[in-house]
Amino acid sequence: MPLLAASIIVCSPAMAGDAKVGKAKASVQCAVCHGPTGIAQYPEAPNLAGQVEIYLVKALGDFRSGARTNEMMTIVSKSLSDDDIANLAAWYASIQISVQQPQ
Amino acid sequence: MPLLAASIIVCSPAMAGDAKVGKAKASVQCAVCHGPTGIAQYPEAPNLAGQVEIYLVKALGDFRSGARTNEMMTIVSKSLSDDDIANLAAWYASIQISVQQPQ
Repeated sequence: MPLLAASIIVCSPAMAGDAKVGKAKASVQCAVCHGPTGIAQYPEAPNLAGQVEIYLVKALGDFRSGARTNEMMTIVSKSLSDDDIANLAAWYASIQISVQQPQ
Repeated sequence: MPLLAASIIVCSPAMAGDAKVGKAKASVQCAVCHGPTGIAQYPEAPNLAGQVEIYLVKALGDFRSGARTNEMMTIVSKSLSDDDIANLAAWYASIQISVQQPQ
């Protein structure tokens, strides 16, 4: 498929969470479904690589509170502290993605 | 920040939706928040570039049914047909992303 020559580099700046701590936790609790670099391993799971940090914090908080439900995430999120959520969001947001738009 | 030399190219194959039709609709209804190539323009909105197609179909369907709520998406999704959802998901999934993991 032809691609635009130029691609857009996206890198979210770090916020409150600790990306390195988040990476370690993600490797244990998240990578089976979302992949070691945030690229989903199953069709039902979203890619998280480079995702917007504040969006990830909200998503995990919503799963934990029950405002949003998902068979897997409803269970996984229950064990996460506020710090865990901040660190995981910082980790996934810190992964750089570049985008190439199909013509 | 040092990066791994190798990056992972991610490209989701087309499913039932028509990505070109989805692109046209997205440029009118989605791009203001999610960007012309699926990179979010606001911190509350997620990136959609290269997102998993079946995940996007479910997300839009959940917003439309009320199973998932969001101030903006609850309104926007109400006007979407099943075909619209399939086409939009095909469009965003068709955008190639590559990932570079921070060391």
